[in-house]
Amino acid sequence: MTPENLLANLPTSLPAELMEDLVCANGVRIERIVSTGQCSAPGDWYDQAENEWVLLLAGAARLEIEENDSCRKLELHAGDHCFLPAHQRHRVDWTDPAQPTVWLAVWWPA
Amino acid sequence: MTPENLLANLPTSLPAELMEDLVCANGVRIERIVSTGQCSAPGDWYDQAENEWVLLLAGAARLEIEENDSCRKLELHAGDHCFLPAHQRHRVDWTDPAQPTVWLAVWWPA
Repeated sequence: MTPENLLANLPTSLPAELMEDLVCANGVRIERIVSTGQCSAPGDWYDQAENEWVLLLAGAARLEIEENDSCRKLELHAGDHCFLPAHQRHRVDWTDPAQPTVWLAVWWPA
Repeated sequence: MTPENLLANLPTSLPAELMEDLVCANGVRIERIVSTGQCSAPGDWYDQAENEWVLLLAGAARLEIEENDSCRKLELHAGDHCFLPAHQRHRVDWTDPAQPTVWLAVWWPA
């Protein structure tokens, strides 16, 4: 199901992140992700073959991004965005359990 | 200049739409566009070689989309989105002159 409006009728409690494709064409996939407190397990990192760009539309989250030999934590609020080039290791350190967090994610080949 | 937060420090009056690249990589371009009442001239239609997906982040706008032999007007408010495949003729019929309208636009090859 494609949500008509990305900010309407948000679930407030989910057993797992809710991921919905908004458009998928010619190698590009645009997705809405709703989190209600979900995050990556400790020590669990994403290492993706594709480029990803994320924009926080609502709620609050914290990404952890590996840079050289150190890690950077990035607080995200509505309107904040981040480009994660392919193989940029990152994890979702936290999402706010008190409100729905809505992400827009764009993926495309590197 | 890449805005750090897409909703912060919005201009309230612009001589023309403000377009800023957020990321441009491997054929995909993601852009923020701020309108303060700008729209397409009457009878002026976009007919683009690339796919475009737009999301309204703030403000209000109305798109006009050509479908077969007729036209459809689409009111957009924060959270509304629309996929415009390559060569889908469309125009910006109206943007709210009373507040900044913030668009997210993603372009990629068809």
